Amino acid sequence: MELLVQTLFQLTIIIVCAKLMGEFFEFIKQPAVVGELLVGMVIGPYALGWIHPNEVVHIFSELAVIFLLFHVGLETRLSDMMKVGSKSLWVALLGVVLPFVAGYAYLAALNHDIKTALFLGTAMVATSVGITARVLGDLKFMKTRESRIILGAAVIDDVLGMIVLAIISGVSQGEFSSVNIIRITLVAIAFVVLVVVIGSWLVKIISPYFHRLKTRNMTVIIALVTCFGLAALAQVIGLAAIIGAFLAGMVFADTPEEHDLEKKIEPMVDFFVPVFFVMMGISVNIALFTNGSILLMALVVTLLAVVTKLIGCGLAVVKEGLPTALVVGVGMMPRGEVGLIIASIGAQMKIFPDEIYAVIVFMCMATTLIMPPFMQMAVKYKLRAGTSKS
Amino acid sequence: MELLVQTLFQLTIIIVCAKLMGEFFEFIKQPAVVGELLVGMVIGPYALGWIHPNEVVHIFSELAVIFLLFHVGLETRLSDMMKVGSKSLWVALLGVVLPFVAGYAYLAALNHDIKTALFLGTAMVATSVGITARVLGDLKFMKTRESRIILGAAVIDDVLGMIVLAIISGVSQGEFSSVNIIRITLVAIAFVVLVVVIGSWLVKIISPYFHRLKTRNMTVIIALVTCFGLAALAQVIGLAAIIGAFLAGMVFADTPEEHDLEKKIEPMVDFFVPVFFVMMGISVNIALFTNGSILLMALVVTLLAVVTKLIGCGLAVVKEGLPTALVVGVGMMPRGEVGLIIASIGAQMKIFPDEIYAVIVFMCMATTLIMPPFMQMAVKYKLRAGTSKS
Repeated sequence: MELLVQTLFQLTIIIVCAKLMGEFFEFIKQPAVVGELLVGMVIGPYALGWIHPNEVVHIFSELAVIFLLFHVGLETRLSDMMKVGSKSLWVALLGVVLPFVAGYAYLAALNHDIKTALFLGTAMVATSVGITARVLGDLKFMKTRESRIILGAAVIDDVLGMIVLAIISGVSQGEFSSVNIIRITLVAIAFVVLVVVIGSWLVKIISPYFHRLKTRNMTVIIALVTCFGLAALAQVIGLAAIIGAFLAGMVFADTPEEHDLEKKIEPMVDFFVPVFFVMMGISVNIALFTNGSILLMALVVTLLAVVTKLIGCGLAVVKEGLPTALVVGVGMMPRGEVGLIIASIGAQMKIFPDEIYAVIVFMCMATTLIMPPFMQMAVKYKLRAGTSKS
Repeated sequence: MELLVQTLFQLTIIIVCAKLMGEFFEFIKQPAVVGELLVGMVIGPYALGWIHPNEVVHIFSELAVIFLLFHVGLETRLSDMMKVGSKSLWVALLGVVLPFVAGYAYLAALNHDIKTALFLGTAMVATSVGITARVLGDLKFMKTRESRIILGAAVIDDVLGMIVLAIISGVSQGEFSSVNIIRITLVAIAFVVLVVVIGSWLVKIISPYFHRLKTRNMTVIIALVTCFGLAALAQVIGLAAIIGAFLAGMVFADTPEEHDLEKKIEPMVDFFVPVFFVMMGISVNIALFTNGSILLMALVVTLLAVVTKLIGCGLAVVKEGLPTALVVGVGMMPRGEVGLIIASIGAQMKIFPDEIYAVIVFMCMATTLIMPPFMQMAVKYKLRAGTSKS
C-alpha cells in the first residue's frame, strides 16, 4: 500500500481504538491513559496483529510526545516553583531520590547492566500528578493544604525528573566514565538553565509584540516552532528531545499568552498524544508476563515504586501527622507519561532488553491504577483524624 | 542524522521561513501563500539547497493539505449551496467549463499527452475565494450583491472542482478508455453523494450525543478521524485523498458544532499548512523559467486562466451590466490551494513532466497576484457606473 494511505489508515485505527478505550476507562472511572496502553498491547503485533506501525507513524508518535511535554511545560510556571514552600521542595526531593536509588539498587543487585539500572531508577522518579489532581477533585479535597503541597511538589518533581533524564540519557549514549558523567551533567544543567533563563527573558521582552503581527495564530506558531527547534537541539547535544519540548513549554508558561496558547494547543494534544500511548502499548511484548520471573520483577518494581514514594514524600511532611503524610505519599505515587516516555527512550536507544521495558510500563500502569482507591482511604483517615483532633 | 532530529529541523526551518515570508507578504498587502511558495523555491534543492526534505516531511505536507481541505470543507455548507441563486450556479458552471476546456485544448494543440492536458484543465478550474474575500472586505465591498454571487459561486466551484479532480485523477490512474472513464465517473459521483448524504445524516443524528462523552475535545477528534478515514478511503478507491478530507469537512459543516470545530482546528491548520506550500515551492525547478518556451507557456496558461474566468463568470451575470460582470469575473480569477494541490497530485502520479508542474504553480501565483489591483479597478468602475445610473 502507498505510504500516505498506510499512514492514514494506521493513524485512524490507532486513534479510534485509543479514544474508544479511553472513553470506556473514563466511564469506569479509570485513567484513559491505561486504556490506551492496554488497547495498544491488544492490537499490536505481539497480540492481535491488527497493526504493524510504519516508520512515519513511529515519528508521528515521537512528535506527539513532544507536543505532550510542551503542554506539560506550559503548566510548569517558574514563578509557581519559586513560591512553593519548603515542604513541597522536600516532598519532591525525597520523592525523587528514594525511588531512583531503590530502582537502581534493585537492578544492580540482580546483576543487570549499570545503564539499565540507571534508566529504571529514572523511570521511577517522576510523579504524574494529573490523575491525583482529578481524584482529589472528585473527593472534594482539592482546596486543602495537602493538595497544595502535592501539586507544588509535582511541579518540582517534573523538572527534577527532566534533569535526571537529561543526565542519564546523555551518559548512556556515551562511554560510562566519570569524565563523561561530569561533562553531560554540566551540559544538561547548562542547557536547562540557559533555556529557562534566557528563553523566559527573551519571550517576556518580545511577546508583547506578537499581537502586532498580521499572521493569524502567530503566538501558537512561534511557541510550537520554539518547541520543535529546542527539541531537535536537545537531541543533538545528547539529551532527549522531550527535554527541549518541556523547557520550551516552561519558557511560555509565564507569559500572559499562556492561557490562550494552552487552549489552542489542547485539541492537537488530545488528538495526537494517544498515538504515543497506543504505540507504547504496541511495543510491549505481553507474552513476557507469562514468564514468572519477569512478572515477579514487575511486581517488585511496582512495590518499590509505591513504597519509596510513600516513605520519601511522607517523611517530608510526617511532622504534620501520619494522616497528612499518608495523603501526600499516596498522592505522589502514580507514575504516568514521564515514566513511560523514559521507558520508550531507553528502548529506542536499545539500552535495555524488552523485559525491562515491559516492567516499566507495568509499573506505570499499576501505580496509576492503585492510587485512586488508596487515596480514598487516605482521605477518609485524614478526615477522621482531623475530626477527632479538633 | 537521526530521522526524528532531521524531521524536526526540517519542519522548523520550513515553518520559520514560511511564516517570515508570509508575514512580510501580508505586510506588503500580498497573499501569504505566494510568499510561502516563493520561499520554498528559494530554500529548496533547485536553488539554495538549504533543505532536502526527507520522506516523513513529505508525508507531513500531505497530511497538512488534508487538514487544509478538511478546513475548506467545513466552510462549505450544503445548505448554503442549496440557497445560492441561479446566478451563482451559472457563474460557477461557466467558470468551471471554460477554463477546463481552454487548458485542455491548449495543451492538446501543443501535442501534449491527453492526461497532461486533462490535468492542466482541472488545475485551472477551482477559484480560491479566500483572497478575493479579503480584498473585497478591504475595499468595503463585501455586503454587495456581487460579493454574494462570488462567494456562492466559489462554494459550488470548489465542489465541482473536486468532482472533476476525482474523475480525472481516477481516470489517469487507469487505462484511458471510455469504459474506464464511465466507471470512475460513477465511482466519483457515488462517493461524493454517498458521503455527503449518508454522512450528513449520520452526523446530524449522532452529534447531539457528542457532548455526553467524557473525553475532552471529542467532537474535534471524531471529525478529524472521519477526515483521515475518508481521505484514506478516497485514495484507495482511486480518487484523491483530499477529496475524502473535503467531504469530511462538508459533512460537519452543517452541524451546530461547526463553529467550535473550526476554531479548534485553525491553529493546526495555521501551523501545518504552510509546510505544504513551502514543499510545493521546493519542488518547483525555477531554472525551467529561463527556458523561453516554458516561460511563454506559463504566460499563455495564465492568460487563458484569467480570460476564461473573466468571460465565463462575467457572461453569467452580463445581463446586470458590464461593471457587475467585471467585478464577478475578476473576483473568480485567483486560483490557489486547489489548483496547487491538483498540480502536486499530478506530479506525484508522474502524469506530467516538471515543466507543466512549474507552469501550473506559476499560473496559480500569477492569477492570485494579479487579482487585487484588477479588483480595485473593477470596483471603482462599478461604483462610478452605479453612481452615474442612480
